[in-house]
Amino acid sequence: MAGMHAGIKRNPTRQDLTLVVSDRPCVAAGVYTRNLVYAAPVALNRSRTPSERIRAVVVNSGNANACTGERGLADAQQMAHAAAQACGAAAEDVLVMSTGVIGEFLPMDKILAGIKEVAAKLGSDEDSLVTAARGMMTTDTSHKLAARSLQLSGRPIQITGMAKGAAMIGPNMATMLGLIMTDAPVSTAAAQQGLSAIVDDTFNCISVDGHMSTNDTVLLLANGAAGGAVLDGADLRQFQSALGEVCTELARAIPADGEGATHLIALEVSGCASRAAARQIAKTVADSPLVKTAIAGADPNWGRIVSAAGYSGIPFDPAGVTLHVNGFLLYRQGSPASFDAAAVSSSIKDNRETSVQLRFSEGDSQIRFWTADLTADYVRLNADYHT
Amino acid sequence: MAGMHAGIKRNPTRQDLTLVVSDRPCVAAGVYTRNLVYAAPVALNRSRTPSERIRAVVVNSGNANACTGERGLADAQQMAHAAAQACGAAAEDVLVMSTGVIGEFLPMDKILAGIKEVAAKLGSDEDSLVTAARGMMTTDTSHKLAARSLQLSGRPIQITGMAKGAAMIGPNMATMLGLIMTDAPVSTAAAQQGLSAIVDDTFNCISVDGHMSTNDTVLLLANGAAGGAVLDGADLRQFQSALGEVCTELARAIPADGEGATHLIALEVSGCASRAAARQIAKTVADSPLVKTAIAGADPNWGRIVSAAGYSGIPFDPAGVTLHVNGFLLYRQGSPASFDAAAVSSSIKDNRETSVQLRFSEGDSQIRFWTADLTADYVRLNADYHT
Repeated sequence: MAGMHAGIKRNPTRQDLTLVVSDRPCVAAGVYTRNLVYAAPVALNRSRTPSERIRAVVVNSGNANACTGERGLADAQQMAHAAAQACGAAAEDVLVMSTGVIGEFLPMDKILAGIKEVAAKLGSDEDSLVTAARGMMTTDTSHKLAARSLQLSGRPIQITGMAKGAAMIGPNMATMLGLIMTDAPVSTAAAQQGLSAIVDDTFNCISVDGHMSTNDTVLLLANGAAGGAVLDGADLRQFQSALGEVCTELARAIPADGEGATHLIALEVSGCASRAAARQIAKTVADSPLVKTAIAGADPNWGRIVSAAGYSGIPFDPAGVTLHVNGFLLYRQGSPASFDAAAVSSSIKDNRETSVQLRFSEGDSQIRFWTADLTADYVRLNADYHT
Repeated sequence: MAGMHAGIKRNPTRQDLTLVVSDRPCVAAGVYTRNLVYAAPVALNRSRTPSERIRAVVVNSGNANACTGERGLADAQQMAHAAAQACGAAAEDVLVMSTGVIGEFLPMDKILAGIKEVAAKLGSDEDSLVTAARGMMTTDTSHKLAARSLQLSGRPIQITGMAKGAAMIGPNMATMLGLIMTDAPVSTAAAQQGLSAIVDDTFNCISVDGHMSTNDTVLLLANGAAGGAVLDGADLRQFQSALGEVCTELARAIPADGEGATHLIALEVSGCASRAAARQIAKTVADSPLVKTAIAGADPNWGRIVSAAGYSGIPFDPAGVTLHVNGFLLYRQGSPASFDAAAVSSSIKDNRETSVQLRFSEGDSQIRFWTADLTADYVRLNADYHT
């Protein structure tokens, strides 16, 4: 893999083009935005995954190629075609990811020249993983990588993932791109089903601002270079578990790097009648600007959390609600608990991560959900940045 | 009516208690929050409206009496009882509204002393309407009043309304209180049905931050002092129309005074298959922090508006979407229109109100919806203010 500055972004120190190539065909699975208004590369990838023959992924940042109609789709196809030529693959065996400004046409001259140039760097860059991860960044303050090594029936297996995203992050999915690569031999069905289930519990359990993007994409490429038979049984379960860890680590990194964020808020909603109910309550609390500003202000303002749950649309007994923040009991069975507000406030202020545990008395289902706090810097970034 | 500072708020220059008394029984209708976690005064009013015998409404700000359990309900009943004694009514003929901090018990000593004191001011205050409206304010920067006078079959009729609200404003309803008073003779059924329908098109079509409050209440009191028979036919329709105008004016005033807001955003969503679909799209666009910060930054960022509609959950043909901002065509039938970005930006910057018209090709239903932009001041206010 390799990354470079192709001139899509104005700042020459910021990478904007990444090419990832496998020396053999990959099983590929994809999970995409559910936004009705989806970008051209999402349309292209949807038609090409799941697959057993993907050879490369080309990624650009700085321009989302979204809301660009027929011309945008032709541009995405041309990107795939150019990448295929550069690495000796068939055009239809390449996937495309784009992120950045919505509604502008891609600067195809820069992208086509860039693809040739970045392909020439393949295999020669020691920091290729970091360069590739940086090529997909927009307003991210740092690149996001996660990896696991495991032994499956004596075979060493590697899973490496990269992701980007800092705003326009509402689950299903976010302005987020994720690319997970492994040398494990995995069947197409196991890759797609496993990725879909894991994304549901990881990348679809995060938000920054609740705004669902046009471009969200997570791809899993498995080229089987580790050798041996296709994974099944206990080996497959162990692989899925490690894949889940990689996705959890990358997903958490996105709200942790949320635009302007000073806190990662880790929500645990439990005691619900269903996982869907728990998710809906968690998302409603996570998206409340009043909850997010309270955490930014280190204010243990439990009324905002409990009242957000109350308008989630999920029925529950208010007298069965219990809330802990950073381990402090704030609200017990529907009544205010007496607590040391200064101590809770300090625990929020002094830690980058705030834990919010909201328990109901409706059942046994639960969910984890991560979001960012809301600061004046988020507003400044988004009043000034043209996405 | 009268308003005063009873000591619930710390700042002695800010009113926090209002008493409104009718010299004869009123027909009273109420519309309340749909939040599952609703405040004690909401519970009390729900059990007392619609009614034909309401004599008074007592309102406090600075404390919402929400999430306060049995004791909170007893406090609300005691407030009603004290107000009833002070104006010679039965306790069950008084309604109560509270707004302010969630989860703290009311300072009943101050409230009971205040009710006696404010009752003594009834009829002696020239600015009673303004004082009363100020007694319900929290972070509002100005009081909100609207009135209409009309002639119905020769009878002069007066409608006067007051409202408060600046944050925790998501429809159904807002941390908003509204009180509409009229001397028109109206039946209980017409009052309740009329108010419910009008609230649905006015107070339920606004948002500031999408956070639905525990205390939202709109009350209509009609004491029939204008005399004559109960309104029906054309007179009733004319009355409802004027009531709608009063509610529209008050509803718009809330996001216009949204915490930290620099723009009132007036959305018109049209061409939808149903009014419910139009409402859902409008609410999704209105609640997107990326749309709100774009307007704050005078950025004609149509991609954020179109992509927000795309994740509203309402199906539509993306190729049938057309968008105007302040009369400028930005997006036509699913494709970017060429427009003078500097001119659109200036039109946003130079006006307090921004018009956003989003047209679909699914049907004939439409809705108007008002929201506020999102500024760094909103964040500062809510990171520092303990609701």
